[in-house]
Amino acid sequence: MKCRVCRGPAVIDIRRHNANFCQEHFLRLCRDQVTKTIAEFDMIKPDDRVLVAVSGGKDSLAVWDLLLDLGYHADGLYLGLGIGDYSDTSGDYARAYATDRGVRLIEVDLPTEHGFDIPTGARAVKRAPCSACGLSKRHLFDKAAHDGGYDVVVTGHNLDDEAAVLFGNTLRWQTDYLGRQLPVLPARHGFPKKVKPLVRLGEREMAAYCVLKGIDYIVEECPMAVGNKHIGYKEALNALEAESPGTKHTFYFGFLARAAERFHEEVEAERDALLSCQRCGAPTSNEVCQFCRLSERAAGAQPVKLGAKRSASPA
Amino acid sequence: MKCRVCRGPAVIDIRRHNANFCQEHFLRLCRDQVTKTIAEFDMIKPDDRVLVAVSGGKDSLAVWDLLLDLGYHADGLYLGLGIGDYSDTSGDYARAYATDRGVRLIEVDLPTEHGFDIPTGARAVKRAPCSACGLSKRHLFDKAAHDGGYDVVVTGHNLDDEAAVLFGNTLRWQTDYLGRQLPVLPARHGFPKKVKPLVRLGEREMAAYCVLKGIDYIVEECPMAVGNKHIGYKEALNALEAESPGTKHTFYFGFLARAAERFHEEVEAERDALLSCQRCGAPTSNEVCQFCRLSERAAGAQPVKLGAKRSASPA
Repeated sequence: MKCRVCRGPAVIDIRRHNANFCQEHFLRLCRDQVTKTIAEFDMIKPDDRVLVAVSGGKDSLAVWDLLLDLGYHADGLYLGLGIGDYSDTSGDYARAYATDRGVRLIEVDLPTEHGFDIPTGARAVKRAPCSACGLSKRHLFDKAAHDGGYDVVVTGHNLDDEAAVLFGNTLRWQTDYLGRQLPVLPARHGFPKKVKPLVRLGEREMAAYCVLKGIDYIVEECPMAVGNKHIGYKEALNALEAESPGTKHTFYFGFLARAAERFHEEVEAERDALLSCQRCGAPTSNEVCQFCRLSERAAGAQPVKLGAKRSASPA
Repeated sequence: MKCRVCRGPAVIDIRRHNANFCQEHFLRLCRDQVTKTIAEFDMIKPDDRVLVAVSGGKDSLAVWDLLLDLGYHADGLYLGLGIGDYSDTSGDYARAYATDRGVRLIEVDLPTEHGFDIPTGARAVKRAPCSACGLSKRHLFDKAAHDGGYDVVVTGHNLDDEAAVLFGNTLRWQTDYLGRQLPVLPARHGFPKKVKPLVRLGEREMAAYCVLKGIDYIVEECPMAVGNKHIGYKEALNALEAESPGTKHTFYFGFLARAAERFHEEVEAERDALLSCQRCGAPTSNEVCQFCRLSERAAGAQPVKLGAKRSASPA
């Protein structure tokens, strides 16, 4: 197995590129793919102040590392979601990376600052945990970016993530979600600009990137995500990708090139209907935003002990 | 396990309906679903002359049987495709049904009437067998409907088929195919009207229908289809359906309700560009239609022996 670039011994094969790479040229490939993605979708300007949403997992630490290596001014944001040991451990990885690299990590702790954790909040509003978690993260990312005066929020969604989300949205033809599933969402109506520079790179490449760069990350999946539908979508796409390498890339980039704009109408209508949350001022389609409603309902709820049987079924 | 309707002993469960049925009420369900589909999409008028494309498999024999039971004037059309024993056996099942039921089966034999079989034709034009077969069948259905003065051509595509085709078209975002993937294609530019009355019924239900009605059908898949991508799409959807019954129905009917019309533009453009084939007069986007080109290329080709290794890879 030889590197496509230098013919030296390869450390990784990427089947959808039909090529193998040595360490040096694999890391260069990752940087080049991110550079290409940032340019193609006009994601980040050289002087932008960038806030990277860091979970302690491979994708968010890799994208932070890549942006720093490419010379961007990128701080990290870690959200403590109160998901037992998982949150403690993932926070440790995020802090260790920031310390090693000498960069700034902002921390927001949901239980300390908002009085509830994800397991308790999800049960209080009878939502699947991943749904309560997703809306909380979006709210807190937006707020931190706004409060800190950042130009752009970066998330570590990779090709596998985006293809699986697209698959779920397509299976249900959720036309509003389809219209919004883009690698760049521009700043608008109080929302910060949000970008996904890893959409050309897969999950396996991001794990390899971290290993080769010596970045320690939390390997476990979130315990609340076990059995959620997203994992089933990934498995279905993985089986097809194994048969036909490139399936996920074709699916996601084909959508962007030939279908996404057909679903813009719903998104425009939604945007035009945005109000300001009466509690916190965040943009929302209702009088009170979903996060404030979650927060209010969770405030009086009995705390959920992780490990105990959950009554809310996973999404 | 009790029948949802009469509480008698059930013979089949349908998970996406979350219900079980006895023989009588299962057969009634099948008829009701077909009646509903025909009405919803304005498929067949009471006095229409109907031509059913009959392969000898469960779906096409079931839809023929259902239409006859519902009182439609439906003749069958069997195409001999020259796929070795598979064609011989499937033809026997089609003939046996027509004889038992005392109805008319038109037969067209590709090798006898056009001088080539599917394995030879596919290799001659370097197409995947399923692709050469599909275009030949469409051409011969259209011609038989035109020559026989039929108002509508019926095919036995069921929910599993349509969901898998939709999945393949979506994975590649083939916008022209997406615009055409409807349960009814109106008569136009020399094409007959084509309808799929089984889109509310699944593969498993169609097998049960035939068994319960005593209809013998060919159980084997076509030997040329082994390993094609369509089968991979079905497997992926089956895994998701097992986890979440109703996934296929939601996917297909969600597409019809909220997405199909977004892809009509391409179809209109394609229609406006149609010509008449210089050889046979059939509507085509080129000077000579694909079937005539296949036919010409296959005429001088060395016959392919089934069972021998094929050089064309399956689609």
